[in-house]
Amino acid sequence: MKFLRVDMSAQTVKFEEPGEAYKLYGGRGLIAKILTEEVDPACDPLGPQNKLIICTGLLAGTSAPTSGRLSVGGKSPLTGTIKEANAGGTAGWMMSRLGLRAIIVENAAPGKCFILKVGSGTAQLLPGEAYAGLNNYELVARLQQAFGEKIGVISIGGAGERGYRNSTVQITNTEGYPSRAAARGGLGAVMGSKGLKAIVLEPGAAPVVTYHDREKFNSAVKSYVQGIKAHPVSGEAMPALGTAVLINIVNAMGALPTRNFSSGSFEGAEAISGERLAQLQAERGGKNGHACQPGCPIGCSNIYKDEKGEYLTSGFEYETIALNGANCGIASLDAIARIDRLCDDFGLDTMETGTTIAVCMEAGRIPFGDEKGVMALLQEMSDGTEFGKVLGQGTAATGKYLGVQRIPTVKGQSIAAYDPRALKGTGVTYATSPMGADHTCGNSILEQNVAPTQKEGQVEVSTNLQVGMATFDSLGLCIFSGFCTADPANIGHLVDMLASRFGGAWDVNKLFSIGIDTLAMEKKFNAAAGFSKTDNRLPRFMLTEPLPPSNSVFDIPDEELDKAIPF
Amino acid sequence: MKFLRVDMSAQTVKFEEPGEAYKLYGGRGLIAKILTEEVDPACDPLGPQNKLIICTGLLAGTSAPTSGRLSVGGKSPLTGTIKEANAGGTAGWMMSRLGLRAIIVENAAPGKCFILKVGSGTAQLLPGEAYAGLNNYELVARLQQAFGEKIGVISIGGAGERGYRNSTVQITNTEGYPSRAAARGGLGAVMGSKGLKAIVLEPGAAPVVTYHDREKFNSAVKSYVQGIKAHPVSGEAMPALGTAVLINIVNAMGALPTRNFSSGSFEGAEAISGERLAQLQAERGGKNGHACQPGCPIGCSNIYKDEKGEYLTSGFEYETIALNGANCGIASLDAIARIDRLCDDFGLDTMETGTTIAVCMEAGRIPFGDEKGVMALLQEMSDGTEFGKVLGQGTAATGKYLGVQRIPTVKGQSIAAYDPRALKGTGVTYATSPMGADHTCGNSILEQNVAPTQKEGQVEVSTNLQVGMATFDSLGLCIFSGFCTADPANIGHLVDMLASRFGGAWDVNKLFSIGIDTLAMEKKFNAAAGFSKTDNRLPRFMLTEPLPPSNSVFDIPDEELDKAIPF
Repeated sequence: MKFLRVDMSAQTVKFEEPGEAYKLYGGRGLIAKILTEEVDPACDPLGPQNKLIICTGLLAGTSAPTSGRLSVGGKSPLTGTIKEANAGGTAGWMMSRLGLRAIIVENAAPGKCFILKVGSGTAQLLPGEAYAGLNNYELVARLQQAFGEKIGVISIGGAGERGYRNSTVQITNTEGYPSRAAARGGLGAVMGSKGLKAIVLEPGAAPVVTYHDREKFNSAVKSYVQGIKAHPVSGEAMPALGTAVLINIVNAMGALPTRNFSSGSFEGAEAISGERLAQLQAERGGKNGHACQPGCPIGCSNIYKDEKGEYLTSGFEYETIALNGANCGIASLDAIARIDRLCDDFGLDTMETGTTIAVCMEAGRIPFGDEKGVMALLQEMSDGTEFGKVLGQGTAATGKYLGVQRIPTVKGQSIAAYDPRALKGTGVTYATSPMGADHTCGNSILEQNVAPTQKEGQVEVSTNLQVGMATFDSLGLCIFSGFCTADPANIGHLVDMLASRFGGAWDVNKLFSIGIDTLAMEKKFNAAAGFSKTDNRLPRFMLTEPLPPSNSVFDIPDEELDKAIPF
Repeated sequence: MKFLRVDMSAQTVKFEEPGEAYKLYGGRGLIAKILTEEVDPACDPLGPQNKLIICTGLLAGTSAPTSGRLSVGGKSPLTGTIKEANAGGTAGWMMSRLGLRAIIVENAAPGKCFILKVGSGTAQLLPGEAYAGLNNYELVARLQQAFGEKIGVISIGGAGERGYRNSTVQITNTEGYPSRAAARGGLGAVMGSKGLKAIVLEPGAAPVVTYHDREKFNSAVKSYVQGIKAHPVSGEAMPALGTAVLINIVNAMGALPTRNFSSGSFEGAEAISGERLAQLQAERGGKNGHACQPGCPIGCSNIYKDEKGEYLTSGFEYETIALNGANCGIASLDAIARIDRLCDDFGLDTMETGTTIAVCMEAGRIPFGDEKGVMALLQEMSDGTEFGKVLGQGTAATGKYLGVQRIPTVKGQSIAAYDPRALKGTGVTYATSPMGADHTCGNSILEQNVAPTQKEGQVEVSTNLQVGMATFDSLGLCIFSGFCTADPANIGHLVDMLASRFGGAWDVNKLFSIGIDTLAMEKKFNAAAGFSKTDNRLPRFMLTEPLPPSNSVFDIPDEELDKAIPF
């Protein structure tokens, strides 16, 4: 698996055979290694010193289930921290078929617009002026016209081009729609700052992956897939209802962010639930149980059709629905799906967008529940009005601009769709993750032994989850494929996959040392970028303002938070 | 000397006799003490938890020269750090005559508008709706109509009411003009967030100050005044040319910020020099050598008249001229004076405003040198347009919004009018001061023994200056009265003043322990607010981009910076 280095200043490309030192680094871990070794942590995230790294995980190219996740990383213009965001879709799988582990985009061609076309052993920077300013859906359609239907596309819309700090890198899914997003942290703006509009991946041959013991690998994969399918969430709930199954569950816990995190329970939850979504799409000919990447045994994604039965969006997820629905007081799935489509098209993080809009609602710019007002704000972002550009800076900047005191962010990134007062393990993760408030860094929603509002034990819960997630993000596996690792036997199958893929002595400690090592590098980068433990705090209002209906506050002391991920 | 506590939520006032523990705290030191004891460092600076503290220094009410400085403090909405900004004018002197050491404004009446009227032993919160939205000049004129010509006024203009993070607290001068500013750090917005529009100080009797040994005090004052007058800067240059004398001097050093800190030398320096200013005002009947507060032996201020001989502004200082002149490429004193007047009137920090405008120029919003464009941007702030509100957030927020990479700020506050690449001692102060990039915390411009661009020795120079300035800011003395302390005999006179005012054993160590103690409290507050040594850094571009004409870079290593003010 090669590295492709792209110098945007010189407009040159170079394939590299990474040395033995990189052999056991993939995904999030590889990003942390390259950034700590090659990028000044104090650099301007939108300046030429930053690097945009797009890479696959350690198990990419194999038959390991969900192993096609694509990691995108760099210094985040939203948080100022190190950042890895990963996504499903086909690009990770396609990169493996082109023999690539990583594309490393260096320097910058500001104000220019290039398309990077990558084939088997070939790469070219093509003039992209004709595509400048296009949003993702039209961009991908035109690229498919120009380069064929079977390409994979990694691209930015207008938001990334405008330098919006809440902009995404979008990735095409199995249907060729740009609906999967490396969403968090504004990495679309990093890509935009480089002058790179899109990466076009040509269809490659089968990936050439070497195995220490292929038979043992296949056997471990088979067992692991059985584990995924046997788990009630990854085997039943998610294939049936998608991630939106969580709406009713999290609402019942009292942790569903509602009207800018002022309640944990939304009276309109039923109308935006996974159950309602499944029913609606069954009526309209949409699809649940859709796999976003080839070979996924879970299929938590969907194809969402509108009132007329026309395709509206896909990859329509719990976080998007919760934060643009309940958190904005909007109880209409169609309204939220239109927001999702606009976000994917323009290239906005749906989560950051939902919390930003809710902060505008709190400030009285538009009322809670005002769907038309939301569309008008999105239009302002798209038009690049002065206020639209403020919105494009994300929730923290918008809240500060509007003088809002209840701003739900950590390190400048918005909190995900689980109120930490009612799910404290996730709250510890929000506070202490090197990435800002990121649920995918360690979400305690399925924790069985420590009650969600219990004060004690959450730091340990979060730490274990953060190690696990950093490991999965480095393997390149979807974190949903990891629910089954609550059963140690399934961890054993993972260990077997690594041993039979790479050889050498592997055990559970070596497996999770991948995550520990990754977190340690990330923390080192952040410390050099100016972060300290005092940045690892939730917004103050969550420490004092009780969250209805549980009336819980986040009461884990700072000294306890400081004990999380002690690597 | 009493404390007056004003509860803006309950709209009550209370006089307090501060205990013995507060006896030796005044000005900046008193602010640090009250904030560290009473305010949560993690609070929202514009929320009700913050306190606005307005107080006099330890030598207030005495005949010590320049002892009427007024300190204004709180947690800064611009930097998030502790903040003290002090100003001349008559208010400090008047507070002493009302027997007041401090006015402490607590809680908040958001959206309301009150006037606090203070007399001898009396204080009232009066409805101020009739004054809401007025800028400082009209506000003061109306307050003088209502309460008499002899009042002192501490007030905010529209900027503070709008919550602008670059807004000032303005203070009337000896002529009754609101042209003195506690300018830095956005304390006007803190006052605005409380619902307090102005404090009206009635003329009081002579201050009742007790002395341990009055005769010795008078004698020390006499000697110290001789010291001030004998010093070439405070005794000659400043009375003759005001602080603007520095334009030609700093330009000749190559440290005059020019076109957003891209050069240290401005071809139009002569046209905006102190010499030119003095000549112009002599022609027009303006005034140099004006004292901003009663009894000042220096008189570095001025009254600036326009082309028609009409009053335009006063307190028209070097920093304002350099940052709105050279740094914006504007070579017209009249144009800069109009900017100054607008800033005083609306209540904007002229320094933060000048650097913000220069960043807009760098981004291409308006060209360098475009006076009309500057007025239009100021009008946008005044009108509260969307972009105007971005500008009101200060240089760092505006630069980030515009995607500018060369942003001259530290801890979110703009660098003053000495480029740190050509004046490295001041650079160390910018980086390490608890207040953000603040020249008044320790400016090495008069340093004789360490050359300005020398790499070695600057940390010690800055540390000594920072201790000295924190001491002067706590005594309530103008820092210009301290140039003469280069002569140890004059330090002795200061020590004598403190000993004969307060009694007890005083020596030079005890004198400067005031500054050391103050800095230590400030650092403690900041640490709890989330700051660490990695925040003590200059903008990266100053480390790598040579500054013409010396082509010097700021090359003091981080490890050296970390040794500054080690208390």
